[in-house]
Amino acid sequence: MTDRSIGTPIDEAEREMGATLAPRFDANGLVTAVVTDADDGTVLMLAHMDADALARTIKTGEAHFFSRSRRRLWKKGETSGNVLDVETARIDCDQDAVWLTARIRGSGVACHTGARSCFYRRIESGPDGKPRLVHETSR
Amino acid sequence: MTDRSIGTPIDEAEREMGATLAPRFDANGLVTAVVTDADDGTVLMLAHMDADALARTIKTGEAHFFSRSRRRLWKKGETSGNVLDVETARIDCDQDAVWLTARIRGSGVACHTGARSCFYRRIESGPDGKPRLVHETSR
Repeated sequence: MTDRSIGTPIDEAEREMGATLAPRFDANGLVTAVVTDADDGTVLMLAHMDADALARTIKTGEAHFFSRSRRRLWKKGETSGNVLDVETARIDCDQDAVWLTARIRGSGVACHTGARSCFYRRIESGPDGKPRLVHETSR
Repeated sequence: MTDRSIGTPIDEAEREMGATLAPRFDANGLVTAVVTDADDGTVLMLAHMDADALARTIKTGEAHFFSRSRRRLWKKGETSGNVLDVETARIDCDQDAVWLTARIRGSGVACHTGARSCFYRRIESGPDGKPRLVHETSR
């Protein structure tokens, strides 16, 4: 019998097409997680999850991550109140990335800078042909 | 004078709030890139970019990545024809992640499995309380 808990090695065909959650954690024990707004599709943030953060997210419906800088489990909004209520969690083909659609509780801000989304700057080509960043006023 | 080309170290306030593109590449020289469908917001795929892939994406308007498995620059769709035409490129607060909105050329498929999006399975709680993956028929 194969143990089918999180993190168990399984064959690649099963990992890609099967019904078994078997995340392919990197050397640091992490998968990447992208969060989009459940209503308008804006990418709110990108972060990382270890097995514990992923399990808690699935169990509680509130997004948990692993902070690489603080090296610990981090419930999004634990201090700010801007908890992310997860609508849908998905995993990608090779199970090294998670996509959450969510709604932001509290003041509706996902980024530590106070912006709604972390992606508040567009990359554009400047007059000299070099890329420059342009702030988006609507985010 | 400070050289403001890609990859140049700059202070953190400028990196977060300024107009200078200064990606914070990881130890492998990569940033994470998430691609969403420009029309309906579906997360199509997650991949990685080195400085060259990012520069080519900005310059050509076609998504380029760095393949970690093949260890080389990779123009999405170079063999399949499913090129990603970039509508908007954005970078996040600490400049270690890029968000592209794009339209898929060719057969409209972003995933190597033949699915439109790599995120074709939802993570749900099974009857036994354990997580299981459920295929989405609409993707």
